[in-house]
Amino acid sequence: MCKSDIQIAQEANMEKITKIADKIGLKDDEIELYGNYKCKISLDVFNRLKDKKDGKLILVTAINPTPAGEGKSTVTVGLGQALCKMGKNAVIALREPSLGPVFGIKGGAAGGGYSQVVPMEDINLHFTGDMHAITSANNLLSAAIDNHIHQGNKLKIDERRILFKRVLDMNDRALRNIVVALGGKVNGFPREDGFMITVASEIMAILCLAKDLEDLKERMGNILVAYNLEGDPVYCKELGINGAMALLMKDAIKPNLVQTLENTPAIIHGGPFANIAHGCNSVLATKAALKLGDYAITEAGFGADLGAEKFLDIKCRAANLKPDCVVIVATVRAIKHHGGVAKGELNESNVEAVKLGIKNLEKHIENIKQYNVPIVVSINKFITDSDEELNYIKEYCKDLGVDVALTEVWEKGGEGGIELGEKVVDVMEKEKSNFTTLYDENLPIKEKVQIISEKIYGAKAVNYTKAAEKQIKEIEKLNLQNKPICVAKTQYSLSDDPSLLGKPSGFDITVKEVRVSSGAGFIVVLTGNIMTMPGLPKVPAANKMDITKDGEILGLF
Amino acid sequence: MCKSDIQIAQEANMEKITKIADKIGLKDDEIELYGNYKCKISLDVFNRLKDKKDGKLILVTAINPTPAGEGKSTVTVGLGQALCKMGKNAVIALREPSLGPVFGIKGGAAGGGYSQVVPMEDINLHFTGDMHAITSANNLLSAAIDNHIHQGNKLKIDERRILFKRVLDMNDRALRNIVVALGGKVNGFPREDGFMITVASEIMAILCLAKDLEDLKERMGNILVAYNLEGDPVYCKELGINGAMALLMKDAIKPNLVQTLENTPAIIHGGPFANIAHGCNSVLATKAALKLGDYAITEAGFGADLGAEKFLDIKCRAANLKPDCVVIVATVRAIKHHGGVAKGELNESNVEAVKLGIKNLEKHIENIKQYNVPIVVSINKFITDSDEELNYIKEYCKDLGVDVALTEVWEKGGEGGIELGEKVVDVMEKEKSNFTTLYDENLPIKEKVQIISEKIYGAKAVNYTKAAEKQIKEIEKLNLQNKPICVAKTQYSLSDDPSLLGKPSGFDITVKEVRVSSGAGFIVVLTGNIMTMPGLPKVPAANKMDITKDGEILGLF
Repeated sequence: MCKSDIQIAQEANMEKITKIADKIGLKDDEIELYGNYKCKISLDVFNRLKDKKDGKLILVTAINPTPAGEGKSTVTVGLGQALCKMGKNAVIALREPSLGPVFGIKGGAAGGGYSQVVPMEDINLHFTGDMHAITSANNLLSAAIDNHIHQGNKLKIDERRILFKRVLDMNDRALRNIVVALGGKVNGFPREDGFMITVASEIMAILCLAKDLEDLKERMGNILVAYNLEGDPVYCKELGINGAMALLMKDAIKPNLVQTLENTPAIIHGGPFANIAHGCNSVLATKAALKLGDYAITEAGFGADLGAEKFLDIKCRAANLKPDCVVIVATVRAIKHHGGVAKGELNESNVEAVKLGIKNLEKHIENIKQYNVPIVVSINKFITDSDEELNYIKEYCKDLGVDVALTEVWEKGGEGGIELGEKVVDVMEKEKSNFTTLYDENLPIKEKVQIISEKIYGAKAVNYTKAAEKQIKEIEKLNLQNKPICVAKTQYSLSDDPSLLGKPSGFDITVKEVRVSSGAGFIVVLTGNIMTMPGLPKVPAANKMDITKDGEILGLF
Repeated sequence: MCKSDIQIAQEANMEKITKIADKIGLKDDEIELYGNYKCKISLDVFNRLKDKKDGKLILVTAINPTPAGEGKSTVTVGLGQALCKMGKNAVIALREPSLGPVFGIKGGAAGGGYSQVVPMEDINLHFTGDMHAITSANNLLSAAIDNHIHQGNKLKIDERRILFKRVLDMNDRALRNIVVALGGKVNGFPREDGFMITVASEIMAILCLAKDLEDLKERMGNILVAYNLEGDPVYCKELGINGAMALLMKDAIKPNLVQTLENTPAIIHGGPFANIAHGCNSVLATKAALKLGDYAITEAGFGADLGAEKFLDIKCRAANLKPDCVVIVATVRAIKHHGGVAKGELNESNVEAVKLGIKNLEKHIENIKQYNVPIVVSINKFITDSDEELNYIKEYCKDLGVDVALTEVWEKGGEGGIELGEKVVDVMEKEKSNFTTLYDENLPIKEKVQIISEKIYGAKAVNYTKAAEKQIKEIEKLNLQNKPICVAKTQYSLSDDPSLLGKPSGFDITVKEVRVSSGAGFIVVLTGNIMTMPGLPKVPAANKMDITKDGEILGLF
C-alpha cells in the first residue's frame, strides 16, 4: 500500500455528478452544479418527496479511539460502497472537513485508501464554500456587536461579558486570546476577545440542526451573544442582523452531493466540533440521504460515548430521526491499546491484552443497547492482527449476542465491506429498532448530566465547580434549561480522564463549566478546557503542499 | 424610477451561462459551472486562442468623483450592452465586489438600474469564492509567520517589524489594531497586529496581476512579510508556504463569467483597493475579454488620476496591454460640484459653475492625451441637467478636439449607450492608439513620483517626510526600486487635499510613507493615512437585509 490517499483519489474514475444525482432520482432543477463533480441539492426535494418512505438509517460509531483513529469515516464510506456492490441503493452522509486541520497535522481527510469521497482535493479545500459562509455570518455578527457598542450601545452590552467570538477556518494559536479595538476612539471600545476555528462556531451547530432556512434564521436569532450591564441576556436578533446572516447562508444550507471512489453517492454537509457541539453532519444531509436512498449511512465524531450519544440524544431528538442500526467500529490495535499495550508494541499478537481491552468495546455495546437499536461490530482489519486475537473478539461478541464483521475497506474498497454490509442488512431484517432517547430533555440539567454520566460513561457521581453551579442557575434564570446536554469530554476514555483506558469504573465526572448554545438548542457541559482554536505544528502539513504547473496537487494525503 | 437595483436584477431574463459561454466561443470543457448563471473560465483557453488576434481594449474612467459616484461601472456595463445592441461582439471585464462594503453602506454594487451584471445577489455575496480563497491564503501566511516564531524562530523574525497583516472580508473597525498571542507560552509571542479588509491584501493585487498559477505562486513567494532582527528582509517563500497558498488559489485564479441584464457577457474577477493597490480587475479577466470579444470594455477605480494612471502604468505595463480607447465619464452634477456648487443646489442649472468645474474634466483629457490613446467623453445624464449646461460641455470638448456622448444607461440600458458606443467605435476607426506609459520604471523612485505628480496631478513639487525618505532608502537597499509607482491619494481631488476641487495648481504633494508590494510588483506611495479596514455605519446596510421563506432577497440595492 504505497499509494497516498491523494494519489488514489486522483486516479478515481469519477462519474459526472449529474449522473450520480440522476441515479438517486434527483431532478435537473433540484441540483446546482459546482463544476462537474460537486453539486448542491435544492431543499425543494423534501417537498417533492414528502410522501416517500424514508430509507433505513445506519449510524457508524466507534470505541474510544487511539490518537491514530480507528477509520470510522473509512468504514462509513466502505460500508456505503459495499451496499451498492450488493445492489442496494445506499447513500452516505458525512461531515465536511475544515481547512484548519488540513493545513495543520491531518493534511486532508475524506475517508482513506480505497474508501474515500472524491474530488478529495476540493472537499478538503474550499469545497462549495459552506465553511466560508459560516465564517462570514459569524463575523458579521461579531462586527455588529462591536459596532453596536461603538455607535452608542443602546442595548447596554457589557463588554466584559460578550460570549460570542469571532472565527477563522485556520489553525492559528496567536488568535486565541487577543485584545481588539485598540488605537483610540475611532476604533471602538477595547476589550478582550478571541478567535475560534470556524467549525466551533455556534452557527455551524445551528446549520447542522436546522430544518430549513427559516429555522436557521430563527435559531441564529436566538444565539445568546452577551449580557448587558444589568445582567440580562442579549440575543442576536436584538441586533437585527440575523436576516443578513441568513442571506449569507442561503446556499450553505443546501447539502452537497459528491461520490465515493466507487461512485456511491455521498452527501457531505456540515461538520461541528464533537466536544462543544454535537459532531454530526447536518440533519438536512441525513434526511436527504434517507429520502434518496434505501439505506442512509452516516457517522458521528469521536467514540460512541460522545459521538453516538449526541447523535442519538441531540440530533435524532431534534430531527425526529429513528436509527435502524448502529455499527461500532473497533480495531484489534485499539482494543490492545485499551488493554494497556504501549504504542510501540501494538504490532505483536497479544490475546491477553485483547481480553482486557475488549471491555471498552463491551461497554459501548451495552450503551447502544440502552437505545434499543440493533448493533453490528465492525473490526477494521490490519495486517498485524492475529487470528487468535480476531477469534477472541468474535467469540466475545457472539456471547454478547452481537454480530461481528471484519472489514478491509481501506485496501479493498466496497469489496472489503461486503461482510459488514450483509450483517447490517441481516440484523435490520431480524431485529426491529425501538429507538428511545436516553433521557427526558425537560429534566433538570444536573439530572440529565447524571443519567449520561452513569449510564454511558459508567461514572459514580458528578461534581460541579462553583462556576458551573452558578452557570446552571443563570441558564435556569433564562429559562433555557429544557434542552439536551452536549458533553465536552476527552474522547480517549469513557471517563473525563484520558489516561483511564478500557472500561473504567468508580470514577467521578467533574463539570467545570456549563454554557448554553441557545441557537443550536443544547446545553454544553464542559469537563475540562476545550481548545477551540488549534495551532500549527512545528512543520505544518501546509509546508509540504504544492500545486505544479500542470495542476498536480502535492501534500494532501 | 421607483424600482431598486435588486428588483430590476431579480426580474432579469437571464440566459443559462452555458449559452453565454457558447456565444463567445468557449468550449464545454473550458468552463466550470457554479450553478446555472455563473461559471469559471479555464486558463486553457489562452493556449487554444494564442494565435487569435485580440479585440479592441476600451478603458472606462472618470473625472474626480463626488461622494455619490459618477456611475462609472454603470457606464461600463451600459457601453457593453450598447455595443452588443449594435451587433458587435463585446465582452465586459469588471472588478468583483467585496462583502464588507455590501454590509456596510453600499448594500451591493454591480452597475445600476438597467445596466447591471447578474445574478446580482450572488455577485454581491460569496460569488464563486474568490474573496474567501484570498482570505484563506492570506491568513495561512499570517498563521505561518506566528507559528514560525513560536516554534523557534529560525529566521529571527522581528515581531516588531512584521509587515504582513491578517485580513477578513468584513467592515470591522475593532480589528484594525489588536494585540495577538496573549495568554502565555502556549499561545505564542504577543505582538501588535491588525486586520485589513480582504481586498487590501497584497494577494488580491497579485491575483490581479498574475499571468498564471505559476506566476501567482512566485509572486506570493516574493511578498516581503517582515524584517529579521538583523534588519534583513524575510520573504514569504522562506516560510515555505507559498505552495499551499497557491493550492488555495487554484480556482480563484480562473476568471468568472456572468452576464448583464441584456445578456452581454461580463467577466468579473478580482477587485484590489484603488489606493494602496492598482484598483483594476485581473489581467486574466481583461485578457480573456480581449480573446473572446472583438471589444473588451473594462474600468479602473476612482478618477482617472488614480484609476486610469494605474491601469495604464501598472496593469498595462505588467501585462503588455495596449488600450485602444479611453472613455472619461463625467456628470453635469459632478462638474458643477467641481465648480463650487454645494450639494443641496446641484439640481439647479448653473452654467457659470459648469464653466469653472469643467477644468477638472479638461485636465483629465489632457492627462490621457499624454498616453496617446483616443478619448471619448461620456456625460452620464441626469434628469436635472439643463440643455445649456450640456451644450456648454459639448462645445468645450469639441474645442479640445474630443468627442462627447450623452448616456442614459441607468434608465435605458444598452439603448441609452448607443451614442457612446457609436462614438467609441468611430474614434477607434479614425484614430490609432500609440499607447506609451508615462515613465520608465527603472528611474529612481522619486523621479517616478515627480513625473506622476507633475504631469497627472499638476503639482509643483513633491515633499517627503523623514520616514518616507528612510523607507525609500530601505527599498533601494533591497534592490526593489525598479517597479512602477502606486499612489495612495484622495480620489476627490487631483491634489492630495480632498477640498481642492476643479483643476488645482501650485500645490505640493506630500509623501508620508513608501512601501513596497514586492509580490504584486509595485511601490506604494502614500500621501495620507489610508484606511485599510472600514467600519460599519450607525445603521449598517446588513440590518435591512433579509431572505424570506420563499427565497425573496431584501435589502441588497
